[in-house]
Amino acid sequence: MITMEDIKITSKPMSDTPKSVLMGFPGSGLVGSIALQYMVDQLEFEQIGNMTSKYFPPLVMMNKGVINVPVRFYQKDNLAVIVGDIPVHPMICYEIANGIISWLSQFDLKEIATLAGIVTNEPEKRVFGVATEQDYLQRIQDHSIILPVGTISGIAGSILTECKVQGIPAWGLLAETINAPDPRASAATIEVLNKIFSLNLDVKPLLEQAEEIEAAMHKLSEEVQSAEKAPKKEQLPMYG
Amino acid sequence: MITMEDIKITSKPMSDTPKSVLMGFPGSGLVGSIALQYMVDQLEFEQIGNMTSKYFPPLVMMNKGVINVPVRFYQKDNLAVIVGDIPVHPMICYEIANGIISWLSQFDLKEIATLAGIVTNEPEKRVFGVATEQDYLQRIQDHSIILPVGTISGIAGSILTECKVQGIPAWGLLAETINAPDPRASAATIEVLNKIFSLNLDVKPLLEQAEEIEAAMHKLSEEVQSAEKAPKKEQLPMYG
Amino acid sequence: MITMEDIKITSKPMSDTPKSVLMGFPGSGLVGSIALQYMVDQLEFEQIGNMTSKYFPPLVMMNKGVINVPVRFYQKDNLAVIVGDIPVHPMICYEIANGIISWLSQFDLKEIATLAGIVTNEPEKRVFGVATEQDYLQRIQDHSIILPVGTISGIAGSILTECKVQGIPAWGLLAETINAPDPRASAATIEVLNKIFSLNLDVKPLLEQAEEIEAAMHKLSEEVQSAEKAPKKEQLPMYG
Amino acid sequence: MITMEDIKITSKPMSDTPKSVLMGFPGSGLVGSIALQYMVDQLEFEQIGNMTSKYFPPLVMMNKGVINVPVRFYQKDNLAVIVGDIPVHPMICYEIANGIISWLSQFDLKEIATLAGIVTNEPEKRVFGVATEQDYLQRIQDHSIILPVGTISGIAGSILTECKVQGIPAWGLLAETINAPDPRASAATIEVLNKIFSLNLDVKPLLEQAEEIEAAMHKLSEEVQSAEKAPKKEQLPMYG
Amino acid sequence: MITMEDIKITSKPMSDTPKSVLMGFPGSGLVGSIALQYMVDQLEFEQIGNMTSKYFPPLVMMNKGVINVPVRFYQKDNLAVIVGDIPVHPMICYEIANGIISWLSQFDLKEIATLAGIVTNEPEKRVFGVATEQDYLQRIQDHSIILPVGTISGIAGSILTECKVQGIPAWGLLAETINAPDPRASAATIEVLNKIFSLNLDVKPLLEQAEEIEAAMHKLSEEVQSAEKAPKKEQLPMYG
Repeated sequence: MITMEDIKITSKPMSDTPKSVLMGFPGSGLVGSIALQYMVDQLEFEQIGNMTSKYFPPLVMMNKGVINVPVRFYQKDNLAVIVGDIPVHPMICYEIANGIISWLSQFDLKEIATLAGIVTNEPEKRVFGVATEQDYLQRIQDHSIILPVGTISGIAGSILTECKVQGIPAWGLLAETINAPDPRASAATIEVLNKIFSLNLDVKPLLEQAEEIEAAMHKLSEEVQSAEKAPKKEQLPMYG
Repeated sequence: MITMEDIKITSKPMSDTPKSVLMGFPGSGLVGSIALQYMVDQLEFEQIGNMTSKYFPPLVMMNKGVINVPVRFYQKDNLAVIVGDIPVHPMICYEIANGIISWLSQFDLKEIATLAGIVTNEPEKRVFGVATEQDYLQRIQDHSIILPVGTISGIAGSILTECKVQGIPAWGLLAETINAPDPRASAATIEVLNKIFSLNLDVKPLLEQAEEIEAAMHKLSEEVQSAEKAPKKEQLPMYG
Repeated sequence: MITMEDIKITSKPMSDTPKSVLMGFPGSGLVGSIALQYMVDQLEFEQIGNMTSKYFPPLVMMNKGVINVPVRFYQKDNLAVIVGDIPVHPMICYEIANGIISWLSQFDLKEIATLAGIVTNEPEKRVFGVATEQDYLQRIQDHSIILPVGTISGIAGSILTECKVQGIPAWGLLAETINAPDPRASAATIEVLNKIFSLNLDVKPLLEQAEEIEAAMHKLSEEVQSAEKAPKKEQLPMYG
Repeated sequence: MITMEDIKITSKPMSDTPKSVLMGFPGSGLVGSIALQYMVDQLEFEQIGNMTSKYFPPLVMMNKGVINVPVRFYQKDNLAVIVGDIPVHPMICYEIANGIISWLSQFDLKEIATLAGIVTNEPEKRVFGVATEQDYLQRIQDHSIILPVGTISGIAGSILTECKVQGIPAWGLLAETINAPDPRASAATIEVLNKIFSLNLDVKPLLEQAEEIEAAMHKLSEEVQSAEKAPKKEQLPMYG
Repeated sequence: MITMEDIKITSKPMSDTPKSVLMGFPGSGLVGSIALQYMVDQLEFEQIGNMTSKYFPPLVMMNKGVINVPVRFYQKDNLAVIVGDIPVHPMICYEIANGIISWLSQFDLKEIATLAGIVTNEPEKRVFGVATEQDYLQRIQDHSIILPVGTISGIAGSILTECKVQGIPAWGLLAETINAPDPRASAATIEVLNKIFSLNLDVKPLLEQAEEIEAAMHKLSEEVQSAEKAPKKEQLPMYG
């Protein structure tokens, strides 16, 4: 167990194979969390550890009656995954990013990658790429659209900044998304990971899940519209 | 006396018998606090200690002129109980959970269980169960409904997370409740504890207390309704 | 000088006689502060020290041009008194209570007593009593009404909690009061102290002060009422 | 350089002559700051040092292109002056007062005096006096009106409290003032200092400055009044 | 790597040539950041390091897909530049200023200069000058207008204060600007730097950028005005 002041990582050490570490925390479209949780479930990664922190809200999720620690560490062969269920507050992104990187630094890392969403409300779900140095853009430029200008905020921004400062190779993917859980953007992200890491991971279940969510939202939207057309009694007290 | 930085536990050590530790703090329906206070009173547990903290609000309750420390430790045979009178603020759940578990860790524990409520406003008062690992679900699955998905927040969530991270067997019960003190949900919880621990604790007094509260609320509700029908002078200034 | 981290007590040590320590801080009706300041003035206690804290607001009171430190320590024979001029914020009650008790613990104490008010708006000014243990209720049960249920908040609650946790005999008096300075409730409290400590302290001046305050408030109330009956120009702009 | 944790005093040591230390920080009417800055400028005090603090707002004032550190230390013969340009937030008065007194304590001090304003909106500008002990009132009672009752808040209150607690002779002057920069009140304060310290400092320039400010405010007031009499178009939309 | 408690500077040491250090952080008109980023890009300064801090918001900017650390250190010959992309919150200006100066103090410095804007909304873009001591005004008085009175707030104010307190020669430029990115004010600042440091840096590209921004804002302004003239349906429900 590694104990930093305010962050507690309880994990088996990572195996000796050099690792590409993929990270996803809840953010726009929950793109990174959905993609990575789907990946570790489908490819049967081994869960090796957890992270808790006094900075996290007191909230725990359940899966068939068994609770999940909010941030989980997984590995399989030359890949490691860190996936979070809870959004990281802007005030603590620096601490969390440094805690994670400090723990990772004891192992043999090839690179760190952050997966996130960028809200464009476009149906197309293009995936943009950024890197900490010009050299690392080569890793992603054939599979994503290099983002010319812009900003990345939140934990992904902090992770990339720390990697750059400490000289750890790092890059990030940003899938076009919406302000709602978006498995379609997660699927687009996995398609890029498939190419980079030759994963051959089927995204059909994610796309089906996306269709279900979209159908439900479409229905909701129609109900809202018809509700808006109906005269509202409470706004017409004279005829009440 | 064990003194951590911001939490102070003043207690006799627990006796040598391995313990199942039941915990209840005020939350939805006050389910856990009411159930456990009722249990320690009826089964005449021994009070062995107290917990105070600079994080607790300066508030003390009285019982026949004698003040109660807001968080109390009790034991009897193979059971220990921690019961709180004051809600734990989300900002300090992590600290309080770690303080309690750190103190408990010096003793021979069998398991930790959290008792709480989940607001459904259903009259039925079903009791749901969760656990930190698949194995511990066996402990509760015959007596409660395993909660397939969902979240647990507050001190119960923090306790379960820490137990999972530290490998301490733990499970939780969540009784269906309402947004008001709910002895009926506490009674349903005790019925489950009766089965798990063969307590044979009579819940009739709790149910009678529930009926009193419900009668009072029903009366209040009728008064509010008749008051709402009466013309309100202050809203009719023209006829004042 | 005893210096704790954030609280500074500058005081001569208390004399060897075992002490009953009476404490009053501003709260409902200012009952405790008024009663104890009156007592130390009339019975000519010796001022032995002061307490300051970074947590106190920067506010100092004057008496004939000479400033008073906001919290003062007095003693005479077997009695000690701690009286405060400034209300203690809920966030710091725990720290202040622990600081005071920690300093007091080096001396030979018989008991600690807190004096405060409880708002009932009754004219009668009954005095209720509470204690940290059943045994200490004997000290007050013939002279006050034992409070069956209820809560005590603020610094008095913190002092009583800490005394209970540390095993220091302690009790408290709560005089019925109003939301305004209330020398009548302070007088009622002193009548109880007269019996417990055989003080024979005359409360007539306090009652006269109470009558003055009540007369002034009565007059103010009449003025407010007649003002409310008069037409208000600013509400009738058409006739302005 | 003396470095306390959060307060940084950079100063030459004070000369050996025992010192009366006069202090003025911005408060009601800016009475103390205006009076003392005028005094050190007119009597050509030597600036010996500065105080900065992480608690101060990031704000610096200029004088003919040269920046001024917000809190400055001056001395001349048997007088020392500490003058501030920035108001001290109530939350940090305790720390700042202790930092200043702690630094001063290494030198041979005769007394500390605080200069401030008290809002009465009276034209007369009387100067009231207070002291930490009865004995020190003698120092000011012939030249000011001893304040019978009342409160002093802010940094002046904290300085006087700390002086009393630490047994440092101290007194304070409070000039009647208004809620605006008030050189007339500063002049009244200097007249008192002239008597106490035989300074013979001419206050005519301050009074002329006061007349300018008063004339400007009178003009502003007339403009506001005539503006208030004019019909306001935006309140009469029907005739717009 | 120099690590202070909450500020992390990762940089190569500066070369031996004594340095004039120019600093610009986002503030009014972004004058300093725009001017210095333009300068280091055009004159091909070498980037030698970065600064991160737990106090900075988790935000990172991109340049052709490569992320920029929010605060960057550059040098070329006898000039060093510190340029920031993120505004520094008033609460942390003291810490950041001290961290930067503490790091710089290990090198051979000639002087420190802060570049910022001052909102006047004048078209002329005059550049004002200030210094920590009378002597250093000579450095800028022929090329800027010495600011007779006024205040400087934010990180520039903190840097100048610390330089004055620590005796480091320092001066600042304040270009007249508006409440929007203002390359024209940055150009005016560079014209002053051209004279002081004989840089011969062409500002035409900045002026062209300014014209583009101004044209865009002019167009926007016209659209807003014509939109304001059009009747707004939602404000005329009776004719809806």
